[in-house]
Amino acid sequence: MATTKTPVDNGVNVQALLDAREALKKAPEAAQFQWRATCKWVYGTHSRSTIMRFFGLGQEQQHKTETSFSADHPEIFASEDKGITPVEYLLVGLASCLTAGVAAVAQNRGIQIRSIESKVEGKMDIRGILGVDSDVRNGYDDIKVTFTIDADASKEDIEALVAQSQKRSAVYDAITNPVNVTVEVA
Amino acid sequence: MATTKTPVDNGVNVQALLDAREALKKAPEAAQFQWRATCKWVYGTHSRSTIMRFFGLGQEQQHKTETSFSADHPEIFASEDKGITPVEYLLVGLASCLTAGVAAVAQNRGIQIRSIESKVEGKMDIRGILGVDSDVRNGYDDIKVTFTIDADASKEDIEALVAQSQKRSAVYDAITNPVNVTVEVA
Repeated sequence: MATTKTPVDNGVNVQALLDAREALKKAPEAAQFQWRATCKWVYGTHSRSTIMRFFGLGQEQQHKTETSFSADHPEIFASEDKGITPVEYLLVGLASCLTAGVAAVAQNRGIQIRSIESKVEGKMDIRGILGVDSDVRNGYDDIKVTFTIDADASKEDIEALVAQSQKRSAVYDAITNPVNVTVEVA
Repeated sequence: MATTKTPVDNGVNVQALLDAREALKKAPEAAQFQWRATCKWVYGTHSRSTIMRFFGLGQEQQHKTETSFSADHPEIFASEDKGITPVEYLLVGLASCLTAGVAAVAQNRGIQIRSIESKVEGKMDIRGILGVDSDVRNGYDDIKVTFTIDADASKEDIEALVAQSQKRSAVYDAITNPVNVTVEVA
């Protein structure tokens, strides 16, 4: 009996990514990207950041729409809670980067994904930012990401998807390894 | 002639933060926070992350409202651009953290802020994430933040505000120094 195999569709155009990889081997200057945000203080600890333009493939690029993001501190810090905290934005970036990677790697490996869910938990001792104890760091002590994935694959294959996503994740790298940041006043 | 001095009002309740600092000196366990996000894959490289609950001051806490954030890749990566990229969320976190810090430090130093604007630029060589060259890192090579601040203070005092904000910034620390991240499949 002939069986019909439905092609795997996770919605990731892997061929385009493989083509880009080949093209950038010969044109490393096109691989130099610059991502940008602008931020305006509103009042208190509330600010609004806007994302629209970036640079890549040798020219100015832009998103389809401009998006703005409020950040604030919660009420327990005597603030207005008009947005999530700055440190929570890191968790959004980390979870979304790893998730996109899992879908892309699965597409490349011919594994159909049905669902990917994750929870991210970041531990922080706020005695750091409050200046209580100089031995306590300001940022996260550690972050744990736990995935629950439903896919046409064994537990081992699913774990391998996650491991490969982690290996190629821009945000995972930026958080786990030092990034040079310079801050200036114009 | 008597002059009336308007009290500095940047909207930051510095007294509450100083009180918290004193209280946490005696109760370090209350300073242990856990920030959380949950993320669901939508399709392709598009995901949606949700932020609502966190833990701190010894108990479960929550934001006033639940907020969701879409992340995706742009059209030049053959994606749908249904949200900003995961790496751009790091820039939002960095800019908003430093901005809140400037307003808070200025309040503590009696400096009236009129405006704080910043632009953030993060350089990334995408040959890393595409696996073109294993010597190229996945994350940012470097990030530059440039502030433009209008305040009742000298250039030197404004630069000192920014330096102190940087010194106490949770996101600046998390990006410039290594954070331990563990990724698991449930």
